[in-house]
Amino acid sequence: MEEVVAGIDIGGTNTTVGLVSKSGRVLAKDGLKTRHYPEIGDFVSAVTQLVNQQVENLRHDLPELKLKGVGIGAPNANPHHGTIENAPNLSWHGIVPLARLVHEQVHVPCKLTNDAKAAALGEHQFGAAKGMKDFLVITLGTGLGSGIVANGSLIYGHDGFAGELGHVIVVPDGRLCGCGRHGCLETYVSATGLVRTYRELNPQASEDADARAIAELAQTGDAIAIESYRRTGEMLGFSLANSVAYTSPEAIFLFGGLIRAGELLFKPTRESFEKNLLNNYKGHIHIHPSALHESDAAVLGAASIIWNE
Amino acid sequence: MEEVVAGIDIGGTNTTVGLVSKSGRVLAKDGLKTRHYPEIGDFVSAVTQLVNQQVENLRHDLPELKLKGVGIGAPNANPHHGTIENAPNLSWHGIVPLARLVHEQVHVPCKLTNDAKAAALGEHQFGAAKGMKDFLVITLGTGLGSGIVANGSLIYGHDGFAGELGHVIVVPDGRLCGCGRHGCLETYVSATGLVRTYRELNPQASEDADARAIAELAQTGDAIAIESYRRTGEMLGFSLANSVAYTSPEAIFLFGGLIRAGELLFKPTRESFEKNLLNNYKGHIHIHPSALHESDAAVLGAASIIWNE
Repeated sequence: MEEVVAGIDIGGTNTTVGLVSKSGRVLAKDGLKTRHYPEIGDFVSAVTQLVNQQVENLRHDLPELKLKGVGIGAPNANPHHGTIENAPNLSWHGIVPLARLVHEQVHVPCKLTNDAKAAALGEHQFGAAKGMKDFLVITLGTGLGSGIVANGSLIYGHDGFAGELGHVIVVPDGRLCGCGRHGCLETYVSATGLVRTYRELNPQASEDADARAIAELAQTGDAIAIESYRRTGEMLGFSLANSVAYTSPEAIFLFGGLIRAGELLFKPTRESFEKNLLNNYKGHIHIHPSALHESDAAVLGAASIIWNE
Repeated sequence: MEEVVAGIDIGGTNTTVGLVSKSGRVLAKDGLKTRHYPEIGDFVSAVTQLVNQQVENLRHDLPELKLKGVGIGAPNANPHHGTIENAPNLSWHGIVPLARLVHEQVHVPCKLTNDAKAAALGEHQFGAAKGMKDFLVITLGTGLGSGIVANGSLIYGHDGFAGELGHVIVVPDGRLCGCGRHGCLETYVSATGLVRTYRELNPQASEDADARAIAELAQTGDAIAIESYRRTGEMLGFSLANSVAYTSPEAIFLFGGLIRAGELLFKPTRESFEKNLLNNYKGHIHIHPSALHESDAAVLGAASIIWNE
């Protein structure tokens, strides 16, 4: 009998629902608009109907197919309680017991974690971190997220909110962060951080200069765009060198929209990383792009919450 | 049949050898001068003879007593290989296979880790962290060491050198550190860091002003001594707030000579910690002194490497 896991990735704009085999094949994938469901009950109905439909479709060919569980990646997820807690970018306010609500519809184990931790589990189960016991995954999107694996298992922390590397203060009294404090890493190293750097260097920049546009400018030789990526990588490399002192990982994987810029980001990151590393770590720890295909990664990561158990 | 574990704590100056019961009672304790044994073979003979003697003595009352293993806390210890590697403060140079050498004399399991990791294991097994799954121990002596427990187990890292929080860079281009880099936490937060701060504030200070003397001055109301401790605590609190973002611990324990200063250090540390903490951690994480009696702590920590298994 064949088993599949449903992976659900919830973002502020889009939600993706897919079925994933044990070997990491995505056997089905559909999307819906998160904002079309301001009521959580309607959202749960919609995603569980999608999962059931996907399983039914696969059963035409595999009549014995069994749904083993549902893994969900979501912002502000508390993995200990299976809840989404006070997520500023979602319509559902307060504490939402999402794992329980989905479980009541599908009657299989349902687990929840945040998107960066799901990315780390996905890299461990299906990507370049297979077999590794100690590594970091850094997600570089609108913000900066992280998943830390040590002694072979993901660190959740006492309250489920370990791995908030985006909120390590790297510049005391630095840039104002969405969290209300100043100088957090993600105000410098993220798509929005990059744009802030670019605008500081070029106050006349067009309103719609985003990370992708700045990468395109850099490719054409634009000095300010190149310098913006260089500063972003410099700060990232410095922070990763400090991070190594905590868990001494074998490797670090970067993931998310910002890494599409390739060497523009990786080169200054690696240089600053090696420069700032404590001697006994130097030369041993490599920084790689994630090995997961970007369009499948979120669903693979969410499904691996169940497959990783 | 009763079992005991030998705990050996190796410092640059003194080595302590003791026997520890499963409940954490120190049943025997002796010391020797590390520097009296420039040859590692002589040192191993001396400490294993001490262990055998202690076991023999106890057997007068408990003839069935069995030595379960030997745990060793030492600087620059590599727990994966049971070696001491290039320790600048010991006479034995290069890579010393200490666990193997001791094992060849005592014929029981022998394990090695650094003193800060041993302190964390000791706090877990016998101290205030009993039953906790996620906590930090920070040792404040000549330098700053740390042991990180997450998911219920000590983090060793890929190469065995996790938990080097003393070498997180907190002030780019800051004070020169023994590691050759600038601005490491332990150049500000440690007994030597405190003295550097005091001397910066008071260049006329006497040559023999050490951490204890500065604490005594502070108790008499000396403004510069008080300010030195305040700055030390401020930097420690800031760094601990950043550390929380990695592993989200339930509590943080401070250990070592510097904490004898009590509230002189703890008050500014706690204030700076709360001020710099990310909102969702605020008010939940307490900073405590270690619950282990200082004179027994090193032997308890070393023994807990075996008892913790």
